[in-house]
Amino acid sequence: MRVPFDEMKSEFKRVFCKYGMTEEKAEICAAIHAESSRDGIYSHGANRVSRFINYVRDGWVDVDAEPSLEKDFGAVAVYNGNLGPGILNSLYCTDKAIELAQKYGVGIVGLRNTTHWMRGGSYGLYAARKGYVAISWTNTESVMPPWGGTECKLGNNPYVMACPGDDGEPVMIDMAMSQYAYGKLQVTRQAGKKLPFPGGFDKDGNLTDDPGAIEESMRILPMGYWKGASFAFMLDILGSILSNGIGAADIDNVGKGSCGGASQVFIVIDPKNFCDGAHLADTIKKAKAHIKSAALAEGVNSVWYPGEDYVIFKKENTEKGVFVDDGVWAEILAL
Amino acid sequence: MRVPFDEMKSEFKRVFCKYGMTEEKAEICAAIHAESSRDGIYSHGANRVSRFINYVRDGWVDVDAEPSLEKDFGAVAVYNGNLGPGILNSLYCTDKAIELAQKYGVGIVGLRNTTHWMRGGSYGLYAARKGYVAISWTNTESVMPPWGGTECKLGNNPYVMACPGDDGEPVMIDMAMSQYAYGKLQVTRQAGKKLPFPGGFDKDGNLTDDPGAIEESMRILPMGYWKGASFAFMLDILGSILSNGIGAADIDNVGKGSCGGASQVFIVIDPKNFCDGAHLADTIKKAKAHIKSAALAEGVNSVWYPGEDYVIFKKENTEKGVFVDDGVWAEILAL
Repeated sequence: MRVPFDEMKSEFKRVFCKYGMTEEKAEICAAIHAESSRDGIYSHGANRVSRFINYVRDGWVDVDAEPSLEKDFGAVAVYNGNLGPGILNSLYCTDKAIELAQKYGVGIVGLRNTTHWMRGGSYGLYAARKGYVAISWTNTESVMPPWGGTECKLGNNPYVMACPGDDGEPVMIDMAMSQYAYGKLQVTRQAGKKLPFPGGFDKDGNLTDDPGAIEESMRILPMGYWKGASFAFMLDILGSILSNGIGAADIDNVGKGSCGGASQVFIVIDPKNFCDGAHLADTIKKAKAHIKSAALAEGVNSVWYPGEDYVIFKKENTEKGVFVDDGVWAEILAL
Repeated sequence: MRVPFDEMKSEFKRVFCKYGMTEEKAEICAAIHAESSRDGIYSHGANRVSRFINYVRDGWVDVDAEPSLEKDFGAVAVYNGNLGPGILNSLYCTDKAIELAQKYGVGIVGLRNTTHWMRGGSYGLYAARKGYVAISWTNTESVMPPWGGTECKLGNNPYVMACPGDDGEPVMIDMAMSQYAYGKLQVTRQAGKKLPFPGGFDKDGNLTDDPGAIEESMRILPMGYWKGASFAFMLDILGSILSNGIGAADIDNVGKGSCGGASQVFIVIDPKNFCDGAHLADTIKKAKAHIKSAALAEGVNSVWYPGEDYVIFKKENTEKGVFVDDGVWAEILAL
């Protein structure tokens, strides 16, 4: 079904308030979840609201907790998220990194002991819409085998790079280190389809595009095979080191759900100190035109730049109402 | 054949001096090339010396040029590489980023109008051996199709993340955005073998592990399909923006060889402001042990952490002499 954006946001806010959040905090979290769905990231928008409430009920997320400063030096700060709502902690730290970038040209904030940040791209978009370049990542519990292993010992550690765009909409990547999310496997299996490309190994070690076989083996594929596995490792340790926090091995033991106790890094850069606005816009316009000038592959209608899909979803979901699964919406209404 | 490390370095230095470099500069460049071969990165060690000399002869690299400061604010600096030797420019900017990190906790240096940096990992290792975390990348000319396109309109844009290790050897990724380098395709084809996993599309748009078919189509695969293509796009534009420099579309027109006129970014972070040395070492030790605790996949002997391969090559090449292709070595001796 489709729900108008404002109605969706209001409903999320009602639920967050009911489970103990202040009006102000609920408004912010509701907006991030609703915007995620509006941008087509349903998995981390409406579809995560119920799970978040479960975490609050279980005491895994403390809706009253505020981030507290633990270290501070020059263009650097480290915060303890005190297991508060991940969205609020991540926005807070992005704001702090922006303040540092205003003063020093670049700011870097480490956040330890936080909870799931939902859609990582939210913080990239937030900074980019204010005119900043952002590089952020989170570590997670173990959900992916390392390269050469069959057991999950690596996080999928979403990584975000965002930049103000040439036309008002930021350019951004927001990517987990697995080729596909488990959610994608489930949806594809339920539709009786195969993955567009192999997404993992079956239990016998054969590369497969059968989503059910990968769900069974839990041997999901890192993007780019060994490359994504290595990248995930670096994001895990640098997340821990640059926040004085913990990585996958310890998050597995926290026992407070997905990303409970995770570590995050927010690097914010003020591009004005590197080039003027005209150079920034020209660079992006030229790079977009360059990739779009490529002859198209078989059966492809368009080459897309990173973030173009969000803009398309945003337009459609704003005009027609934001898409939400009937069952998901009913569950939220019943909360 | 195998050549002792010091002999290899001396030979490279002789060549660089012969083609106009000062003793001091030649010593530095020779060390980087020799270390790359010693660490098993033959493609960017001995194998690039002749090509570098060709670039000098063609006037594409100015051995006398020095980087010049163009912008400077807080923890940020932007340099013009003046088409000097890429190795010297990149080391210089890494040093400048280290100086900024000492003062502010983090430093970021943009470098425009530079030339090929050879092995990107050299600068990550350099910073990490001094105790710093480094995040660096370069953009390049167009060598890879964007996702959905058949013509090369994206750079492969190597990306580096390095961190001091728990045992004296840094942990590092140094990865291009293509699944395989063209050099790997060539070597695999010449050996009459197939790639371990599909590395591109043939001219009819079929995913293939036949290296010759990919060399013919030039449709090399981004790592992780659309993910690596999007990542490459971000590295291209952020390289240009954070150095006031140019990206693939313009590098293609410079006409001074691979990476002639390219843009680079060097982010250096002092981890001491985030956590103490014990936490850093414990984090890495624990993460290594975690991935190595995974049950092994079929036919696999060990799970490796990022950078472990360099350490193994370094040991063997130090003990037995550094491996170098007979023809490559003869060509260098004849220069």
